[in-house]
Amino acid sequence: MNSSATDNPTIGDLGEFGLIDRVRAQVGQNRHILLGPGDDAAHVSTNDGTFVVSSDLLLEGRHFRRDWSSPHDIGRKAAACNLSDISAMGGVATALTVGFGAPADLPVAWALEMVRGFEDECAHVGAHIVGGDVTESDKIIIAVTAMGDAARPVRRSGALPGDYVAYSGELGLAGAGFATLSRGFRSPKAAVEAHRVPRPPYAAGPQAAGVGATSMTDVSDGLLADLGHIADASGVAIDLDSHTFVVPEPVATVGEALGRNAMDFVLTGGDDYALVATFSSETTVPAGWTRIGQVADGSGVTVDGAAYEGASGHQHFR
Amino acid sequence: MNSSATDNPTIGDLGEFGLIDRVRAQVGQNRHILLGPGDDAAHVSTNDGTFVVSSDLLLEGRHFRRDWSSPHDIGRKAAACNLSDISAMGGVATALTVGFGAPADLPVAWALEMVRGFEDECAHVGAHIVGGDVTESDKIIIAVTAMGDAARPVRRSGALPGDYVAYSGELGLAGAGFATLSRGFRSPKAAVEAHRVPRPPYAAGPQAAGVGATSMTDVSDGLLADLGHIADASGVAIDLDSHTFVVPEPVATVGEALGRNAMDFVLTGGDDYALVATFSSETTVPAGWTRIGQVADGSGVTVDGAAYEGASGHQHFR
Repeated sequence: MNSSATDNPTIGDLGEFGLIDRVRAQVGQNRHILLGPGDDAAHVSTNDGTFVVSSDLLLEGRHFRRDWSSPHDIGRKAAACNLSDISAMGGVATALTVGFGAPADLPVAWALEMVRGFEDECAHVGAHIVGGDVTESDKIIIAVTAMGDAARPVRRSGALPGDYVAYSGELGLAGAGFATLSRGFRSPKAAVEAHRVPRPPYAAGPQAAGVGATSMTDVSDGLLADLGHIADASGVAIDLDSHTFVVPEPVATVGEALGRNAMDFVLTGGDDYALVATFSSETTVPAGWTRIGQVADGSGVTVDGAAYEGASGHQHFR
Repeated sequence: MNSSATDNPTIGDLGEFGLIDRVRAQVGQNRHILLGPGDDAAHVSTNDGTFVVSSDLLLEGRHFRRDWSSPHDIGRKAAACNLSDISAMGGVATALTVGFGAPADLPVAWALEMVRGFEDECAHVGAHIVGGDVTESDKIIIAVTAMGDAARPVRRSGALPGDYVAYSGELGLAGAGFATLSRGFRSPKAAVEAHRVPRPPYAAGPQAAGVGATSMTDVSDGLLADLGHIADASGVAIDLDSHTFVVPEPVATVGEALGRNAMDFVLTGGDDYALVATFSSETTVPAGWTRIGQVADGSGVTVDGAAYEGASGHQHFR
């Protein structure tokens, strides 16, 4: 572990504090960050005296693979899934903390590329890393907490019968990309790229909150699974109209190549971090949102009035 | 992994959402928590429009051992090291997020005992768990982020020549306990217990901030190492007077039994989460604080005017 430092030092060469120093040099600043990394805690301001916060724990081999994704991509995706949660509350993320576990022989350059990926993804919303922790670990562990400002947080529990359902962002692309990579293929590129680095529609969250969305969540486990969380939390039924979906071209291609129904990816594929929300019937469908279904009395999520007979969304431990 | 549920179900039996439901039922509420676990993000209020935040990543086998500590103790300690960081800023923690990785065959009861440990430790300051994430992992991973209110955050960088150094809490007990357990012994109990569950002097943080502490940190890596962070950040030298320390009885006992200098544990033992701070010479030593040294021009930390010839503090990757 104590190999001498070289032009391409490992984390073990640099040590905990050496690594933290290099990370600090790479991290930016916004008006909310009163004190960034390097002290016992960071100090962050809010606009209205409240903040929203969300955490994710990402593990090598389970949530990402070093042979499939670059460190920059892994950083971007780890940031994206947390920033997306803040957006799904109708908020804008301002600050992140990152807990990082890594083997001592990991090149420092890998960690710094990952941090650059974090900062590049955070640039979409103006957030920065404000703190974290570093420890030695057999495999890479990335624990992210995102904090942000939300004037009117939109919960999962507010959907009402009569509301319509709409989404913004991409559906099925990342799932099709995962299926592609799992079979050892590297194209279609759009799908593979979407698995490596999702493109959440961050601005659509505050936009939906601004026009009074009654409930909202991001699609991380799959559209049906995540709408199931809204249906459960709101005590309502949701029915989707399959004819309203436009299957993205790369998703159709993957479906054909792998002999799978492309709608499976759209309805059950995770990791695209689209936003899905419900709106009162009096609310005009916001620009960039697509209406896909209806809220009614009852429970559960159906497609064209019936349970969907396809693969179900991802759930850990199952 | 899909063994049938029993009276003692595993995490694999319950699944991600089943486990989260049981955790939610165990988590309390305070006036700052506008929305707790179960949505995309939690919603937390602050008193003055700012908050402080700190993260730690704790790994089984590295930061805790299931054969040394109960799940309740592990939860308490994981909470303590984060709550202590907030206290070391002069703040009071209000909310925690917990990322939890665990093998599918871990009994649910273990996880819930750990959560109870978290909540019991949080009760010292009135904080609660407001969110988190659960994922499958070979070994247990606990990623904690604590957020809190601090009217006047006290940084590590404010120590000035002429200030005095004081600490509050315990020094050396946890380190002596670790040495004891490492040799296969289980007593003295006070030391072993201190390693399992530290007792940070949470209230001493806001107290020190209130009387104008110029710098402060908590002792997680060892007194000399953590004072080194203050000396570095403040650009000053710190000298400690060894005669001002009272070596706790169990620490003296362990030193004698293991043939080690008891002052090693006091000066370099980590994990007690004492607070150490600097105060202007005009400030009366606050109740519960012990004066142990002096700030001067220069750099580095010395004891009785000389470099300390003992074991150094813990650093990851070294």
